[in-house]
Amino acid sequence: MISKINAALDALKYPKQPRGLYEPIKYALEEGGKRVRPRLLLLAYSLYSDDIERAMPAAIGIETYHNFTLLHDDVMDNAEMRRGRPTVHVKWDQNTAILSGDVMLMLALRYVSECRCKRWAELRDVFIQSCIEVGEGQQYDMNFEKRDEVAVDEYLEMIRLKTSVLVACAAKMGAIAANAPEEDCELIYAFAERIGIAFQLQDDYLDVYGDPAVFGKKIGGDILCGKKTYLLISALNRGDEGQRMQLLSLINDKNIGSEDKIKAVTDIYNAIGIPEICKNAIEAYYDDARNLYETLPLPENKKAPLWAWASELMERKK
Amino acid sequence: MISKINAALDALKYPKQPRGLYEPIKYALEEGGKRVRPRLLLLAYSLYSDDIERAMPAAIGIETYHNFTLLHDDVMDNAEMRRGRPTVHVKWDQNTAILSGDVMLMLALRYVSECRCKRWAELRDVFIQSCIEVGEGQQYDMNFEKRDEVAVDEYLEMIRLKTSVLVACAAKMGAIAANAPEEDCELIYAFAERIGIAFQLQDDYLDVYGDPAVFGKKIGGDILCGKKTYLLISALNRGDEGQRMQLLSLINDKNIGSEDKIKAVTDIYNAIGIPEICKNAIEAYYDDARNLYETLPLPENKKAPLWAWASELMERKK
Repeated sequence: MISKINAALDALKYPKQPRGLYEPIKYALEEGGKRVRPRLLLLAYSLYSDDIERAMPAAIGIETYHNFTLLHDDVMDNAEMRRGRPTVHVKWDQNTAILSGDVMLMLALRYVSECRCKRWAELRDVFIQSCIEVGEGQQYDMNFEKRDEVAVDEYLEMIRLKTSVLVACAAKMGAIAANAPEEDCELIYAFAERIGIAFQLQDDYLDVYGDPAVFGKKIGGDILCGKKTYLLISALNRGDEGQRMQLLSLINDKNIGSEDKIKAVTDIYNAIGIPEICKNAIEAYYDDARNLYETLPLPENKKAPLWAWASELMERKK
Repeated sequence: MISKINAALDALKYPKQPRGLYEPIKYALEEGGKRVRPRLLLLAYSLYSDDIERAMPAAIGIETYHNFTLLHDDVMDNAEMRRGRPTVHVKWDQNTAILSGDVMLMLALRYVSECRCKRWAELRDVFIQSCIEVGEGQQYDMNFEKRDEVAVDEYLEMIRLKTSVLVACAAKMGAIAANAPEEDCELIYAFAERIGIAFQLQDDYLDVYGDPAVFGKKIGGDILCGKKTYLLISALNRGDEGQRMQLLSLINDKNIGSEDKIKAVTDIYNAIGIPEICKNAIEAYYDDARNLYETLPLPENKKAPLWAWASELMERKK
């Protein structure tokens, strides 16, 4: 599936001119991505219909949109690297990143609109609504970085909007494009949304408690950059006043060594019982997704690939 | 018409949260604009159908898109004021301007998609295509600012893409929404495109040769900021080697007084005959538009508002 998606992305024809506009778009869409969203879209489609190629434009559209968000987020976060390569605003410049992103967003809409299906208006509406929600999620994320106090529920809603809504949208678009029953479309959306949240929480968890050999990133990166993760927010909300003060002073301490900072923060997390709290939260979303999966009125052998997708995604970093 | 459009814009409901996302969008769409595009869209619609309210969502969509381009262009151009008020990236910050703009673009698409009409796919396609072309125009504009040599034809193509395509798109969308014959839609598009180019050339002309009392802006602003206008590009292409060198050194001279610089550049323009060259170019596009208007197979009394729109636009600053 992933090679089909990459082939379709490679086959996209961009105008030769203006080069300064289309080269960064091509660059942003090149290789490296896991193609989670288009794969899920095609998978959901294949539960109801065999001619997968018909849904490819929508899959390409959602992947283009996703990469547009990365491009603009990298500008906003001032991130220099993405998938081991310089980001667009570093390789070119900021104006190029803004404008190429804008045009990518329009291209994403064009690709989605090239998906021929009966329920096109529905496909379009879920896509537009999800894109707006992703923007809201990014805004909350930026707001939270400036705030001392963030409630756990606010954080969960932020990651739902910023991350999982688009995964859920991908799944639902596939189902709609294949003309699945309305009830199935909603179930599939809810299922993918829960998995998306579980995945993001697991990402937060593994940053501290993952096996460095398997995780692929250095452990403790979120702690070092003071990122408001589920772990930090839960600890600030559940710790006693002393632990809270200690955490805040550690996070803002620029003199302490990296190893020491990671160890000190992790010790507080452990004392509060954050690993279990986090694992329980992941489990709850995962179980919720499993229940939704069970409810989906399709024969088990037919729908199995959907659960295989969820398991694979959740196992990826363990 | 303009008060109806402003009322519809005022009536738009935005979610209360996140405020940092929706307040800048509201701000960017507030008053001040001439609403050229939505007015033209509704006008074109009214040539073929009476129930104007049906086309209002498309009109609101194109105005939202236009204001999104201003918002992001102001970031890219580092512009501090717009319609007498601080720009969004000044009043808030740059990240807010980028993200609010992104969401505005999605909202524009949502509004357009709320326009119920038979030929919705056609409406969508001309809108998406035009938005992409506007992005290409902005890229060429930024490229040109870094280049010494720009051909007159390149400049004309740039202003066609950056400015007139969206005006033409507005007119065509109105005609499509009213289910006008395909041939009429094309004629109306071409007509508005020519007027759009004539208008932009006139804007360049009036910056140097306008009556300051009527023009509303200070004369010579483009000369002082070294902007590559039709006048400057034509002069650099048509002047002899001496005039060319003189122009380039004047444009880059940071020590010469404003009045002296404007006078010296204007003298060269006059010596080369730029005012006539520019007036002829405006006239040619205007005449072309008139011919297209004559060809439009509607009774004169029916189509007269279209020409009245063009005349009003072109008279605006004289």
